[in-house]
Amino acid sequence: MKAKGKISSSIMCAEILDIRYYLDGFERNNIEYLHVDVMDGEFVPNYMLGTDYIKSLRKVSKIPLDIHLMIKKPEDKIDWFDFQKGECVAIHAESTMHLQRALQKIKQTGAKPMVAINPATPIMALDYVLNDIAGVVVMTVNPGFAGQVLIPQTLQKITDLRKYLDRKGYYDIDIEVDGNVSFENAEKMAKAGADIYVAGTSSIFNKKLDLDEAIQRFRKIINSSSEVVYQ
Amino acid sequence: MKAKGKISSSIMCAEILDIRYYLDGFERNNIEYLHVDVMDGEFVPNYMLGTDYIKSLRKVSKIPLDIHLMIKKPEDKIDWFDFQKGECVAIHAESTMHLQRALQKIKQTGAKPMVAINPATPIMALDYVLNDIAGVVVMTVNPGFAGQVLIPQTLQKITDLRKYLDRKGYYDIDIEVDGNVSFENAEKMAKAGADIYVAGTSSIFNKKLDLDEAIQRFRKIINSSSEVVYQ
Amino acid sequence: MKAKGKISSSIMCAEILDIRYYLDGFERNNIEYLHVDVMDGEFVPNYMLGTDYIKSLRKVSKIPLDIHLMIKKPEDKIDWFDFQKGECVAIHAESTMHLQRALQKIKQTGAKPMVAINPATPIMALDYVLNDIAGVVVMTVNPGFAGQVLIPQTLQKITDLRKYLDRKGYYDIDIEVDGNVSFENAEKMAKAGADIYVAGTSSIFNKKLDLDEAIQRFRKIINSSSEVVYQ
Amino acid sequence: MKAKGKISSSIMCAEILDIRYYLDGFERNNIEYLHVDVMDGEFVPNYMLGTDYIKSLRKVSKIPLDIHLMIKKPEDKIDWFDFQKGECVAIHAESTMHLQRALQKIKQTGAKPMVAINPATPIMALDYVLNDIAGVVVMTVNPGFAGQVLIPQTLQKITDLRKYLDRKGYYDIDIEVDGNVSFENAEKMAKAGADIYVAGTSSIFNKKLDLDEAIQRFRKIINSSSEVVYQ
Amino acid sequence: MKAKGKISSSIMCAEILDIRYYLDGFERNNIEYLHVDVMDGEFVPNYMLGTDYIKSLRKVSKIPLDIHLMIKKPEDKIDWFDFQKGECVAIHAESTMHLQRALQKIKQTGAKPMVAINPATPIMALDYVLNDIAGVVVMTVNPGFAGQVLIPQTLQKITDLRKYLDRKGYYDIDIEVDGNVSFENAEKMAKAGADIYVAGTSSIFNKKLDLDEAIQRFRKIINSSSEVVYQ
Amino acid sequence: MKAKGKISSSIMCAEILDIRYYLDGFERNNIEYLHVDVMDGEFVPNYMLGTDYIKSLRKVSKIPLDIHLMIKKPEDKIDWFDFQKGECVAIHAESTMHLQRALQKIKQTGAKPMVAINPATPIMALDYVLNDIAGVVVMTVNPGFAGQVLIPQTLQKITDLRKYLDRKGYYDIDIEVDGNVSFENAEKMAKAGADIYVAGTSSIFNKKLDLDEAIQRFRKIINSSSEVVYQ
Repeated sequence: MKAKGKISSSIMCAEILDIRYYLDGFERNNIEYLHVDVMDGEFVPNYMLGTDYIKSLRKVSKIPLDIHLMIKKPEDKIDWFDFQKGECVAIHAESTMHLQRALQKIKQTGAKPMVAINPATPIMALDYVLNDIAGVVVMTVNPGFAGQVLIPQTLQKITDLRKYLDRKGYYDIDIEVDGNVSFENAEKMAKAGADIYVAGTSSIFNKKLDLDEAIQRFRKIINSSSEVVYQ
Repeated sequence: MKAKGKISSSIMCAEILDIRYYLDGFERNNIEYLHVDVMDGEFVPNYMLGTDYIKSLRKVSKIPLDIHLMIKKPEDKIDWFDFQKGECVAIHAESTMHLQRALQKIKQTGAKPMVAINPATPIMALDYVLNDIAGVVVMTVNPGFAGQVLIPQTLQKITDLRKYLDRKGYYDIDIEVDGNVSFENAEKMAKAGADIYVAGTSSIFNKKLDLDEAIQRFRKIINSSSEVVYQ
Repeated sequence: MKAKGKISSSIMCAEILDIRYYLDGFERNNIEYLHVDVMDGEFVPNYMLGTDYIKSLRKVSKIPLDIHLMIKKPEDKIDWFDFQKGECVAIHAESTMHLQRALQKIKQTGAKPMVAINPATPIMALDYVLNDIAGVVVMTVNPGFAGQVLIPQTLQKITDLRKYLDRKGYYDIDIEVDGNVSFENAEKMAKAGADIYVAGTSSIFNKKLDLDEAIQRFRKIINSSSEVVYQ
Repeated sequence: MKAKGKISSSIMCAEILDIRYYLDGFERNNIEYLHVDVMDGEFVPNYMLGTDYIKSLRKVSKIPLDIHLMIKKPEDKIDWFDFQKGECVAIHAESTMHLQRALQKIKQTGAKPMVAINPATPIMALDYVLNDIAGVVVMTVNPGFAGQVLIPQTLQKITDLRKYLDRKGYYDIDIEVDGNVSFENAEKMAKAGADIYVAGTSSIFNKKLDLDEAIQRFRKIINSSSEVVYQ
Repeated sequence: MKAKGKISSSIMCAEILDIRYYLDGFERNNIEYLHVDVMDGEFVPNYMLGTDYIKSLRKVSKIPLDIHLMIKKPEDKIDWFDFQKGECVAIHAESTMHLQRALQKIKQTGAKPMVAINPATPIMALDYVLNDIAGVVVMTVNPGFAGQVLIPQTLQKITDLRKYLDRKGYYDIDIEVDGNVSFENAEKMAKAGADIYVAGTSSIFNKKLDLDEAIQRFRKIINSSSEVVYQ
Repeated sequence: MKAKGKISSSIMCAEILDIRYYLDGFERNNIEYLHVDVMDGEFVPNYMLGTDYIKSLRKVSKIPLDIHLMIKKPEDKIDWFDFQKGECVAIHAESTMHLQRALQKIKQTGAKPMVAINPATPIMALDYVLNDIAGVVVMTVNPGFAGQVLIPQTLQKITDLRKYLDRKGYYDIDIEVDGNVSFENAEKMAKAGADIYVAGTSSIFNKKLDLDEAIQRFRKIINSSSEVVYQ
């Protein structure tokens, strides 16, 4: 069992002029990752952030980036980013016919390669890339828009994936969960075996809550819950 | 002849934490438009900004947006944005087989439709959409990256386009120029007949200059020059 | 075990002026579904029927439609149809990177979502969408053209799928078979565990047979056979 | 000047069970063509009719078909249809990088090749295919849906095209108009120089009118008007 | 256990004027296949050989071709080649939504259909095409370029595939290995269960070695090793 | 008027083992270019040659290459080739939305950029790239296959293009003709204003003729004819 849950705060949930405020809060509370979504309007029906934004973001925060590429044929586009050592970079299994090549290219930049899988994608898509990845992003909603509701069977997928990784001996591969990670759902995800939680408007960016309190509450949930053994 | 040149400041040239500083400067100096680039990694080899960023930007500035969509099949994606009355929205002639449909959809949102044309694209691509547009964006570099050098024949294209529009009686259609609009090039573009200037790192975002001075110098150039008759 | 086999009559097998004749025969014989093929020339190498035809068909028959979308990226096109409560709508697992999203969109229309799988597609493609579907369409020929011969291993796939669904407890998910469902093959399909049979030129549209007799013979085969336990 | 306007009745405007009724009316009134739309959901956002429908239609009417292919890469799909001598087959200039090859393939089937151009497409797209075509379809709305309103500048395009063809000496090339060809618009189109009129719900399929009267009224309009010289 | 390993010599490793020299050497040493790579710049990022080259190659050698199609939608392009009885033709599982159709089309030409799978592709992609194939090409590097290093887990995949085929009773399906098949790696591949070895610059085309000696050394390795039982 | 016609011999017309024979003949007769076709099966329906072949060809001949890229999105693929100073590299106007960018990239390699235009493509596609090119390849058949018949209006296009270039003052831009350049057609092309002739099976590779005689005869035709003034 992994020790503690990690938080990846979705920076696109912050309004433009609130970035500094949030970064301060994240650093104060030792948030592990800044989550950055890149969308191309082809793989997913939306556009979100880009290469210059990422470059600029690196200058104002020491929190490592956790970059989620929702783009077609990522293997052709790795060079457009300037991925840094310690950053996580996730690509979608569905988005490429050359998954291993794309992961290999990410690894060569020094970043940690991850594979994201859509709600319908079966786990066996990972069978021959386990040596190449630091984590799996389990999409718990369909990628593209904020504000969607958790798809129930994705909780089962987290459980299945945890067992699959344990059975194969890949204890170090993190399971990241992305999509409607509310306080309530985070607890279930933790019990199912999640390691990294993409936190957005349904948790720490909730404007009704104090930021520090929200983060602490979130962290408490993901840590206490993950001590329960998943089955 | 149009009265005065207008400035469209490219917001992506500002670092994340400098947005407020620049917006203040732009408002203080009556900048006419905020230029926003959306790139999809398919029509152009880069990713830039997105729908949420645009939504957030509208909340912090009263300057109307000038949105440049560098995306494939824009007619299918107009609905993803929430275009506002008074905003400019440019799509590329090369990016769609249904240019008139896409422009029509933009018009229905209340925004001002514009057509952007790549350096190689001939002017006659506009022959049957002149009734549908408020402006033409003449790309003076190839879209996708900042820091490119002006392609010389695009100056000729501005001249040709001005004559073409005058000959057809479309005096109200603005010519916007985008790409390496430096102080030096702006002068040439003004003489050729430009109306709106996308100002970025090669002019008002130049860090060696004082922002107010830079804007005033830029404005002076585009106004004095445009009084010269183009030929 | 399911009680009785259901028939989905492929309306595209009727000549234009024979539609009324066939609809009468189908209603008289309590045919369960009217099968409608939509082909886009991209996912499959043919064009077949369309949105207006479907709209018109609904006006002349009370038999619920069973619509088979052989199209690319169905998730973007659900809105073009006006799916009705009680209709079946099948999309292909191979045709989309967002299978769950597409199924979810179909469910929101009130129709019954189904997944169709091509002859080569493995069953595990269904692993995480079983909660989202009312049925699985097992293609027993390659989609696109009438008149093809049954691919033998698809019979094995029906058997495998039945076991898979039973093992997972999804007893209510129907298995629909599509492609060369002749009298002879229907018997084998029934034994393998099929529930819904797409009946076309190789069975009830056979012009050498009386329509009522053909339907009754077909129904007898699929019912008597399905009482045999599949293995 | 061409003698008389020709009518191409859009068969997709007829309800399924009314086909015979309309075909009888068309034959009785010497309608020149049956217009058939094929849409692929990729070139245009809709699906319409297909190869089997066309095959079946040929069996029940002697009126030659006028087939409008709104599909991507038509050059690869000519073989799927069984085009007949005397039929018109139009492909879109925007839909292919190999326009001449596609036209050549149509010609080899014995059918009459035509080029359709979208509202924004300039006339010079035709410069080097005039030898290869029997007609030009000027889209007067954007293709894909019925019920759209005429785009005004397409009337100008008809005039421009007529002059262009005359100037080049291609007097035999027909100009076909497609989109919102109402009684009122047909008159303007005739004055502008149209030869073939796609008649649908806004004219002869108007359910408030008697079919014979509607056709006769329509024919009168297009004939009397076309005697006016276009300018 | 298969008797002996077979060699498929990659003809693209020979310089243009050395073809005769190599063909003589291959025939003298009873090389089983000439390996021909076809690349389309879309499925893989490179271009390699083509239809005329293949036609010309058949005229100068009696060694049967082993053609590896690294192309998109191969089912649409089978007809462009004139595949011969006895030739192997491999297509990629990732390159088509209609794998069975493509294999069926190859079989109809008289050639032996094979499926190639990229490093990340799971074995179950083969579940329902085992009846349709004579072999599986396990890519041991990512396709597109020579000179890459063996991806370690692909050795495990060979082992897994051998067991999978044996368990299902498909003893006759050959496992072909392609990518960095050096003398050293060939030994490991043989132990894992390979049958056919694509030999290129890292083995028999090594310019430091005598051709006959290199082939004999290579053959010795793949034969002696394959007598070891894989596990 | 240009002094003399130049010959670009299509190397793909030589059988594999005849390459040396032809290269010797070409060098002996001072053939100006070796024509190399690259086809991707997407832009054109065929595959032809590739990067390694080109690399190997450069080693065995001093005749500069004249490379014709019949591929989609060439701007993304320039780097795959290692273009040399003095080589001609033609890309198709129809194959890219970024024609100027692609030409610019070719120029940066030191090679001479050229634009190829399909039979239907209008000349104005060149309006704003004349500064960027050393030549225009006028396709006189549709690209993809050998053995096609000259499309008559392409002769007119050569004439039109010559006038267009002269009128604009681009006297140095060469017109290259490609497709069914037989002895008979070469004469007409020369009169129309061609500069470079792609010579293949219908002229110098004609097996009934002696190679030297065929080249000399061809050269005589293109030189004597081009002294005639085009009109």
